Amino acid sequence: MTSSDLQEQLNLKAISLLHEDADKIQKLIEVQMENLATRYCPLYEEVLDTQMYGFSREVDFAVRAGLLSEATGKQLLSKLERNLALLYEAMNQTD
Amino acid sequence: MTSSDLQEQLNLKAISLLHEDADKIQKLIEVQMENLATRYCPLYEEVLDTQMYGFSREVDFAVRAGLLSEATGKQLLSKLERNLALLYEAMNQTD
Repeated sequence: MTSSDLQEQLNLKAISLLHEDADKIQKLIEVQMENLATRYCPLYEEVLDTQMYGFSREVDFAVRAGLLSEATGKQLLSKLERNLALLYEAMNQTD
Repeated sequence: MTSSDLQEQLNLKAISLLHEDADKIQKLIEVQMENLATRYCPLYEEVLDTQMYGFSREVDFAVRAGLLSEATGKQLLSKLERNLALLYEAMNQTD
């Protein structure tokens, strides 16, 4: 394997791991929303903040380690934020 | 550069980034300790928990991305925990 093949392989792996983590956070928040009587519960906000913080630390690390571009990192973060906002909206409409 | 040179370079970079982050957290907690009247302040506990969580997400990601061994990851985490505990002890002794 050439070094550029390896770099590409590591970059793809990093992005796939981050996608996995974003999916996990989304599912966690989804389940939490379904189980909570109210979406204004401070506990929910706290879990969301903590999860987003943890994910942003991972993305930031991957960017600094040269595994993905800053633009891709920002995309991953904003996509997760958007998905969680949509989830929140969908929940509010079923009231 | 051969692919094993690249892998080694990426691994070293990952470990050096994690050391940097651990140092930053340690300094943050140190400054916070100095500024707070009491070390039993719940805000301090929360900042510490959040920082440790963020750092553990980074380490976990680096392990899964194949940049460091699980043993090295555990070492980095427990070293930071130990240093923070020592800091805490040192603060208590100056009372």
